[in-house]
Order: sequence, then C-alpha cells, then structure tokens
Amino acid sequence: MTNETITAPRGFLAAGLACGIKVSGKPDMALISCPSGATAAAVFTTNKVVSAAVQVAREHFKSRKIYAVVANSGKANACTGQKGLTNARKMCAVTAKALGVKPEQVLVASTGVIGEQLPMPKTNAGIVAAAAQLSDSAEAGQAFARAIMTTDTKPKQAIRRLKISGQDVTIAGAVKGAGMIGPNMATTLLFITTDVAISKVLLETALMSAIGDSLNKLTVDGHQSTNDTAFLLASGLAGQRPITSKCPRYRKFAQALAELCTDLARQMALDAEGATRMFKVIVHGAATAKEAARAARAVADYPLVKCAVHGGDPNWGRIICAVGSCGVKLNPAKLACKLDNLTVFRNGAPVKFDAKKAAAIVAQIEHTITVDLGAGGATDFCYGCDLTAEYVHINADYHT
Amino acid sequence: MTNETITAPRGFLAAGLACGIKVSGKPDMALISCPSGATAAAVFTTNKVVSAAVQVAREHFKSRKIYAVVANSGKANACTGQKGLTNARKMCAVTAKALGVKPEQVLVASTGVIGEQLPMPKTNAGIVAAAAQLSDSAEAGQAFARAIMTTDTKPKQAIRRLKISGQDVTIAGAVKGAGMIGPNMATTLLFITTDVAISKVLLETALMSAIGDSLNKLTVDGHQSTNDTAFLLASGLAGQRPITSKCPRYRKFAQALAELCTDLARQMALDAEGATRMFKVIVHGAATAKEAARAARAVADYPLVKCAVHGGDPNWGRIICAVGSCGVKLNPAKLACKLDNLTVFRNGAPVKFDAKKAAAIVAQIEHTITVDLGAGGATDFCYGCDLTAEYVHINADYHT
Repeated sequence: MTNETITAPRGFLAAGLACGIKVSGKPDMALISCPSGATAAAVFTTNKVVSAAVQVAREHFKSRKIYAVVANSGKANACTGQKGLTNARKMCAVTAKALGVKPEQVLVASTGVIGEQLPMPKTNAGIVAAAAQLSDSAEAGQAFARAIMTTDTKPKQAIRRLKISGQDVTIAGAVKGAGMIGPNMATTLLFITTDVAISKVLLETALMSAIGDSLNKLTVDGHQSTNDTAFLLASGLAGQRPITSKCPRYRKFAQALAELCTDLARQMALDAEGATRMFKVIVHGAATAKEAARAARAVADYPLVKCAVHGGDPNWGRIICAVGSCGVKLNPAKLACKLDNLTVFRNGAPVKFDAKKAAAIVAQIEHTITVDLGAGGATDFCYGCDLTAEYVHINADYHT
Repeated sequence: MTNETITAPRGFLAAGLACGIKVSGKPDMALISCPSGATAAAVFTTNKVVSAAVQVAREHFKSRKIYAVVANSGKANACTGQKGLTNARKMCAVTAKALGVKPEQVLVASTGVIGEQLPMPKTNAGIVAAAAQLSDSAEAGQAFARAIMTTDTKPKQAIRRLKISGQDVTIAGAVKGAGMIGPNMATTLLFITTDVAISKVLLETALMSAIGDSLNKLTVDGHQSTNDTAFLLASGLAGQRPITSKCPRYRKFAQALAELCTDLARQMALDAEGATRMFKVIVHGAATAKEAARAARAVADYPLVKCAVHGGDPNWGRIICAVGSCGVKLNPAKLACKLDNLTVFRNGAPVKFDAKKAAAIVAQIEHTITVDLGAGGATDFCYGCDLTAEYVHINADYHT
C-alpha cells in the first residue's frame, strides 16, 4: 500500500499513541519530526482568548527552522492561566530534549476540553514514548492522524503528488475537525508536510491563500476555537530548484496545496459532529465582497437552514430569511434562490418547481444553494453541514 | 374564573378558530376588535425581507385609530411577491367589511411557513366566521392566543392590573414564540391590549422601552423572522385622566408594561422549540454598551453553550470561547465567569469549585451566566435557552 499520510513527503517522521490525557484511553499524543529542519508557515486562530499552545507556538514559529511539532488531544490547554503556559513550554522542552534540538525549534498544538490543566507526568512520558516510535511508515502517519482526533469519527487525511522542475513533490495533510468550527479559521488543528523547496515567504503566502478558500470557508457551528492552528512544514528534500518567486512553478505548488486544503475541508464538513450531509452556499449580486462572504456564512450558519437540510427539505424561505437578517444590502424585488440548478425563488417571488426534484437535491450528500442578492456584482461562497440531534447529543455529553 | 386574557381590558373583543390554513386543522385565524377605536403602537422586524402582512400593517398603522387586528398562523405570507401583498390587503378589507370599518383601520399579521400563498377562500371565510364569534369572554381571549400558535406547545399570555389616578387599568398580552427568534425583535407575533388612556407618542415610547429589555433580549436560535410584529392597542376606556407626559403615572404604566413583556419573554424562552431550560447571560466590564450586548448575545446564541446547558454541564470554557470570538474588546488577564453566584474562572485562570454544585446550578430550569470582560464599565444581558435534539426534530420536519 502506498503511503498517503504526512510521512509520505521526504524528510518526515511521525508517531501517535495513547498516553492517558484522554480518560477513554484513546490516542492523544502526536508527534512530527523533520530531522533536516523544515521551513514553516502557520495560521492561528483570531479568537481573542487563545490557548497556551497557540501562545507558545506563535513565539517558536519565529525560529528559522522547525524540527518538530508536538500535539495532544483530550485537553485544549486553553483558559489555563500561567500554569498552562508553563506546561505548553514544557511540552516543547521535553520534545526538544528527546530529539536533540532546541525548545524554540518545536511547535506545539493542543485540542480538547477548555479549562483543564494537562496531566504533565503522563504528557511528558507520552512525548518521550512518541519520540522513540518515530517512523516514516504509513502506519506512523495514520497513528498521528488518529492521535489528534477528538469527536472526529475518522482520521482525515489528503495527499497531492506533482512534478516541479522534473522532480516529484509530495504534499500531505492531516486534520482534526468535528466541532467548534467556524471561519476564520475552520480547522482546529491542521498539519501539512511537503518536501518542496520553497522560501518561507512564499510558503506562508501559499498557505494563507489555500486556507482562505477552503478551511476558512467552512462553518460547522459558527464557532472559532481558542486553539485553531495550521502548520505547513517544508523539508526541501524534493531536490528541485527552490521556488523563490511567484513563477508558474509556485502557482503549480500553490494550486495543489489549495486542492489539498479543499479536500480536507470537505472531509471535515462530512465528519462534522453529527453531520450526515454538507452543502455549499454561493452568494452572487452582493454590494461588496465582504457582504457576499457575510451572507454566505449567514445561510451556512442558520440553524433552521441546517435543520431543513437534515430533513431533506427544500425550505428556501429560511434561506431568504437568513440573508434578509444578516445586515447586507439586498434588493427584495431582485432576490433569487436556486438549489443546484433548480430555481425556487426569482425576482422576490416564489417560482413553481418540481417539489420532488427539489427534495431529491437537498437529500444528496452534498448540494449547492445559490442566492442572488440583486444588489451588486460581488460573490463569495461557504461550506456548511446539517444540524442533527446527534450534534446535540455529542455536545450535551462531551465534558462531564 | 377571572379573565386573564387580552379581552380583560375594557373595550376589546377577540376570537380564534380553525379555518383550514393549517393542514393539521388546528386553530389558525385570530381576530381582535376594539369597537370604540384604539390608539396603537407597533414594532416590526428589521429583517430586510419582510412579509406582505408587515408591509400592509406598516401602512395601516398610520391611521389615527385602529379598530381591529386580524392574524393568521400556518402560512407567513412572506416571500410571496405581489400576490401575497394583494392577499394581505384582502384580509384587511374582509375584516373591515365584517366590522363596518375602513380597511386602513385594520392591522394584519401572519406567521408560519415562508413562501407559500394563503388559501384565500378559506382565509376570507375564516375572517367572517371569527367576526361573528367576537366576544369579550376569557374563552374568546384564550381562543385568540391558541390561534396564533405555530410550533408553540401552549398559549403564552400575561396580565398586569394597576391603579392610575384611582382608576383600574389592565394590560394583557398574548404572544407566539417557539422558533426563529433572535433580537431584534424576538417575538414573531405579540398582541397587547390595554384600557389606559394615553397619547400615541407615549404609547409608542412605552412599547419600545418595554420590548427593548424583554423580547429584544431573547434569543432562541439567533433568527429574526420576516414577520416579527408587536401591536399594542389602547382603548382609553379605563376612564382616568389621559397620560400625556412622562409623569409618575406614565412611569407606573410603562413599568407594568415592561414587566408584562418580560413575563412573556420568559414564557417564550421556556416554550422555545425543544427547550427544556433557559438562562440569562449578564456581561459586565465591556468597553461599550454595544459590545456588552454583542457579547451577551454571542454566549446565548452559541450552540455549544446551549448544548452544555441542555446536558446540565458547567462547561464554562465554551462561554469564554464565545466571548473571545465575538469581536469585542476584552482583557484575557482579567476575564472572569460565574454560574449564578459560583465563580468558575477568574483573572484568566480556572478556579477550583465544587463541580457538583456547578452542575446543580446549570441543571436548574433557569440560571444566570455572568461574564466580566475586564475591558470597561458597560453592561448588558440576554436571555437564551438550551439546544435540544427536539429542536432539530421540529425543524427538520416542519415544512414538507
């Protein structure tokens, strides 16, 4: 079996195991190592309350080369005060010692319950054990993807292989999703490895752009977590001439990275907490790009739209209600709405349509809702998923 | 049994019956008559897409005296184009003819499914039948309160009796709630009758103020409907010297009206779609009043907080996450959170607390979440309710 995990790009080792942070005994410690050192790009949550891990990762991210990423699930190490910050630094220090690098060359990420301190003896032992298990095997990559999961039902990974300057370049990603997901940015935790040789500035530009149209366009429950983090590590071992300008080779890489992120965003939507189907909202005719984005997200976040999608119900009235109340400019006499290619509302009035066909569209695993605001020329989109009783069950019982 | 319905104030008759707008055969036509003519105040949705009923009511509201209010449930007459507008006018015309008044002296309100035309022969026959049944009995008031219901499980009514200038003054209200409820304004449909003698300007001021701190502070799902309407009709038959200035007599009336609206808002929260409990969010320490309101609403609207309340789970981390991501200014080192009087988070760090006590607080029918942003002196509040699997069931199956 070919390796389709984050250990597929040259230069990366990974590990994942259970060290007892989760009471369930499921995997909760994940490690990536890049012995040759990686150029790194990162995107963090814009929540004003950020986890200790995010605070430490922001500092360490300034290092010229990154040699490892340590991540735990089970506890988010957020809202944990000074002690939490000390613990996040300790995770980096223990990782650094095990791998013979400096603490500031290690990035850290945490996900799980907010407000509880990490059990440090178990965490430290877990890091040491993970360091001893590091491998470039597909199994190790799989173990990593499993160890970052919280309420995810399955690991979510994607890979893209391409040729740049005649050399094989690989990009691979693992993401955890499930809940507390709303732009910007909708990831919770995303880890991408690649062996491309590229400048740090262009790596950052490519990551921002890729996330902008994928994970940042996904909303599960409109929530932005305290821990959202995306790391992109480039080992440079593909051996091609380094990408140092926005040349066609850059665009080829950036395009593949964007596809990978969109692939992961879709997997997240379909594995969102309790979700059974997803949808894409496209808004046309907005007065500004910002209003187009706001309207698309308003529809995707609207509980009544999400419930209607769950029920396979072409309840377009709720879609119109959502755009009407989200504060964007619109022309009521020009408003229109389509479900896939079926027009259900046009010029502010209902259109006769085949109700069975409409219901069949909404009942698909994925469909597209298109709204025309009739107020301008701007457009944007957003991904969403249905709201189910299972979402409520998961989140009413998650903590205690 | 004393009359505690909208027919209790002198000068009002009501009726409610089933005329076939709802497929279920449940009551769907409601009528209020004030033969002596009423001074009226009104508040309408600020959704940019409004129902035909709202458009017509806004016009007719300009009349000096209002003689009747006709309301239907089952279909919202929203997103129904020109035909919907014609139908809303027809409802007023049929009512006016039956009562011997002018169409523009009749207000109209609709609630129900968006995007479907009213069955006009049934609707017209229903109005004529309701006009024939008008009565000042408690039964008639009850029938009215039932006929405006959609997914409400029970009629919601409140009454206040007070003395003004030695005369008995009565204020009574009936409201429908359940879903698609988010400030401003969280009512869907609210009808208040009173026999106080008061100027139109002061009646409007009192209504705006009363709704501002009650229905406008309630969110069930953050949704503002296309049909939200509040009507306050004053017959003036209490016989006291008319209130024409902001004197103590005005304040007494305004206070009673505010209490009535808060009473109705609480009933709405507890009868919200699928709700089993409610909560009040108080935000202190905000930089501005607007940010205080935004933060309070962010917590009350946050699905993960609502799920935690449903699970009786003192998951304060989600509360902090909500305020952190809603865009308001805050001081992470000063952030604090209380559940009722139990401090769970202070100065940006968790506090040791009795977990059983915290769980008992959240498991109450109603509790208070207090957040201090540590960023200023502004404060505000919001009411919310839990999110349940039943909400999803109701809204996945409502339409088709």
